[in-house]
Amino acid sequence: MSNKGHVPTGRHRVVIIGSGFGGLFSARALKRADVDVTLISSTTHHLFQPLLYQVATGILSEGLIAPATREVLARQRNAEVIFGHVNEIDLERKQVVAKALDSTETYDYDSLIVAAGAGQSYFGNDQFARFAPGMKSVDDALELRGRIFGSFELAEIAAAAGRHDEVSALMTFVVVGAGPTGVEMAGQISELSRRTLRRDFRNIDPTVARVVLLDAAPSVLGAFGDRLGSKAQQRLEQMGVEVQLGAKVVDVDATGIEIEDQDGEHRRIESICKVWAAGVQASPLGQQLAEQSGAGVDRAGRIEVQPDLTLPGHPEVHVVGDMISLDRLPGVAQVAIQGGRYAARQIKRGLAGEAPEGPFRYKDKGSMATISRFSAVASIGRLRLSGFVAWAMWLAVHLVYIIGFKSRITTLLHWAVAFLGRARGERTSTEQQIYARLALERLGDDFTPSLNLDRNAGERVEQTVG
Amino acid sequence: MSNKGHVPTGRHRVVIIGSGFGGLFSARALKRADVDVTLISSTTHHLFQPLLYQVATGILSEGLIAPATREVLARQRNAEVIFGHVNEIDLERKQVVAKALDSTETYDYDSLIVAAGAGQSYFGNDQFARFAPGMKSVDDALELRGRIFGSFELAEIAAAAGRHDEVSALMTFVVVGAGPTGVEMAGQISELSRRTLRRDFRNIDPTVARVVLLDAAPSVLGAFGDRLGSKAQQRLEQMGVEVQLGAKVVDVDATGIEIEDQDGEHRRIESICKVWAAGVQASPLGQQLAEQSGAGVDRAGRIEVQPDLTLPGHPEVHVVGDMISLDRLPGVAQVAIQGGRYAARQIKRGLAGEAPEGPFRYKDKGSMATISRFSAVASIGRLRLSGFVAWAMWLAVHLVYIIGFKSRITTLLHWAVAFLGRARGERTSTEQQIYARLALERLGDDFTPSLNLDRNAGERVEQTVG
Repeated sequence: MSNKGHVPTGRHRVVIIGSGFGGLFSARALKRADVDVTLISSTTHHLFQPLLYQVATGILSEGLIAPATREVLARQRNAEVIFGHVNEIDLERKQVVAKALDSTETYDYDSLIVAAGAGQSYFGNDQFARFAPGMKSVDDALELRGRIFGSFELAEIAAAAGRHDEVSALMTFVVVGAGPTGVEMAGQISELSRRTLRRDFRNIDPTVARVVLLDAAPSVLGAFGDRLGSKAQQRLEQMGVEVQLGAKVVDVDATGIEIEDQDGEHRRIESICKVWAAGVQASPLGQQLAEQSGAGVDRAGRIEVQPDLTLPGHPEVHVVGDMISLDRLPGVAQVAIQGGRYAARQIKRGLAGEAPEGPFRYKDKGSMATISRFSAVASIGRLRLSGFVAWAMWLAVHLVYIIGFKSRITTLLHWAVAFLGRARGERTSTEQQIYARLALERLGDDFTPSLNLDRNAGERVEQTVG
Repeated sequence: MSNKGHVPTGRHRVVIIGSGFGGLFSARALKRADVDVTLISSTTHHLFQPLLYQVATGILSEGLIAPATREVLARQRNAEVIFGHVNEIDLERKQVVAKALDSTETYDYDSLIVAAGAGQSYFGNDQFARFAPGMKSVDDALELRGRIFGSFELAEIAAAAGRHDEVSALMTFVVVGAGPTGVEMAGQISELSRRTLRRDFRNIDPTVARVVLLDAAPSVLGAFGDRLGSKAQQRLEQMGVEVQLGAKVVDVDATGIEIEDQDGEHRRIESICKVWAAGVQASPLGQQLAEQSGAGVDRAGRIEVQPDLTLPGHPEVHVVGDMISLDRLPGVAQVAIQGGRYAARQIKRGLAGEAPEGPFRYKDKGSMATISRFSAVASIGRLRLSGFVAWAMWLAVHLVYIIGFKSRITTLLHWAVAFLGRARGERTSTEQQIYARLALERLGDDFTPSLNLDRNAGERVEQTVG
């Protein structure tokens, strides 16, 4: 049993689950409130997810987009940050159970804000995950960074040895999902191959790498409307990205991806490095909350909250961000930020004896996606922007939302290096992945060859394991 | 069979093994030579090892100290870079065999430069490695970064729950080895706890963390002489580091370390996070070369080369850097750099029909070690410097040797953040380690609890593995 082992204050206890946009911004909004805030998260960092693709493609270091949550909240004296994975919420007893290593702690709350977010969804095909990592965590991004740069390394070797089929599969990159993340990944892999790596190899020509962007839907960036979607598609195609629409993924394995086109025909693309940027699945906590409160959940596991973001019969529990199904709100940072702040305000009003402010109203601040350096699309109110203007706007907005002055300066510097020059400062591959993979192989599990392979590391695992 | 699958040039083929200081600087020194250079390395980066402790303690990102080798050599048209682990050298056939994933390639050479470096030595106790990672690779540094920051995270939880013994073991950091790396690690962990993390926690006081620096030798920084050693020890003690000399490590396990003092008494320090910065072991390729050429090897596996760095009877094979045992040369970057350049010069002289320039002469440019921000020791010729002057010199020298203009600027910025401010920009922990650990646990192997644990990740592995 825990909660502030140091001094029991007797104040209203707010427990927040999650350190994403929803969790962090609700904690901050409680800064001046007479409450004790306990923010519990399964990562020790706040992830600035909109820039994750830049970590995956070597532009930014993980530290810049994933500052320690407790550093961000260090000066907020009424907030503590706890590292732990919440796997149980008891609405009746008003308790949350969190695990970290061998410790299992229970936290009592008076108010609860659940902002546990969403993971990648493979639409019932979780076996695809190891062959096509998602883009949801720092680990995903680092894994993909290793695979992307590693593919070129292996292609260089295969080319020198004359193994042309292997070279072709290694130099084909498939991105599944033509939403903002997919568009940004496809654009960046293309820039990487055509600019950054241009002079780096002797046996392959990286500029002819094939980058395929797939979607089952009929358009790119569907949520941005037809005009911007077409603009984005045009720009991608100019950059050498093959855009394939109406293309449904039916299978993914270690060396390729199988597609069903709209005419029902099946075809296969041989590709070692695949990226999955399609579909989300809300945290399993949503299901738990639904069962206990009688609320419904949608197909993506999102919970049908009340108009004030609370659970039916539980005005003390708010759910915010990617976990909610309400008014067809999109899964974007602003929905989480505004939801988190709204929940914090309602808690403060309650403590002050004021009436709640009425239903949550999402204020759409617009959406944007970068396609390449100097080129983006933005949809703000009735405004539709594309090209350099949209890109400059993207730059400004993202700099504002990056947390911390020093990170802003360093990020700008990294961007200058990548966009004005052609280098990428963060290309380092680690051996860590292979340890896990080789161990899994020994377990008889279906094995994915690592593109990050260092035989030395492999042998060390074999010695330990064998 | 490979070597430049693109165009066989018929030129003199120089194969270089290793992308450390020896390998990289020999490749660069061959820039204007009429040769084909193939640099083979088991990592895709050049590691600037002297700053590895800054990655382990959250100051610099790995990208800054580990640029892609092929990027560094991109404009050197006579050089190709191959990712592969060399596990066989055949001196008779003049061939090198390198493996990467499923490919095994053979490279023919006319001249060979072996610069495969050294790994950490546990003096016959390799079982210590998992409990006390070394400081030799990017992976080591990232693993330690996760353990150091993770220890404080877990201590915060244990303190809230009142588990005081656990808190004490989690907040005790033991660094084994009082050479430059050990001194730098101990100093940085101390600064981290006393400055960076000062306000970050609510249930523990990070500033009382115990940092122990151990060595079996009677002094700190033995190679720097008594005066500088004492200065360094004094400064460390002022910073709160406990320096324990004449202390021999006899056992290391998951929760502590056992020590034999000079009087033969045994004692134990309870500590979760241990760092091993004692002892090196040359690449196993040294043993192979010794067996084939009849050269001797010393206890650390270093090969006894001829005065011109060649193998007996093999003037076409140079060995440089940490792999050699010659004139008691230290295992520092300058020995590798000068050796690499020397080897390159001899190859060029040979091609030009000139006589070799005589035995390799190491020019000692001095050594330095930082203790904390604004404080270092330096030994240059007869000069002995300590304090701020030595630190300013350290800063200048390291900036010069960091590769690439952009990395220099970014590094300076990170240093300003860390040394003038108190923040660390690179604190992000990943889940990668736990995948390997849990898989190993399933294999019945002796399991190290991860301080980086995310139960979510754990469960994912269990589902995959179980």
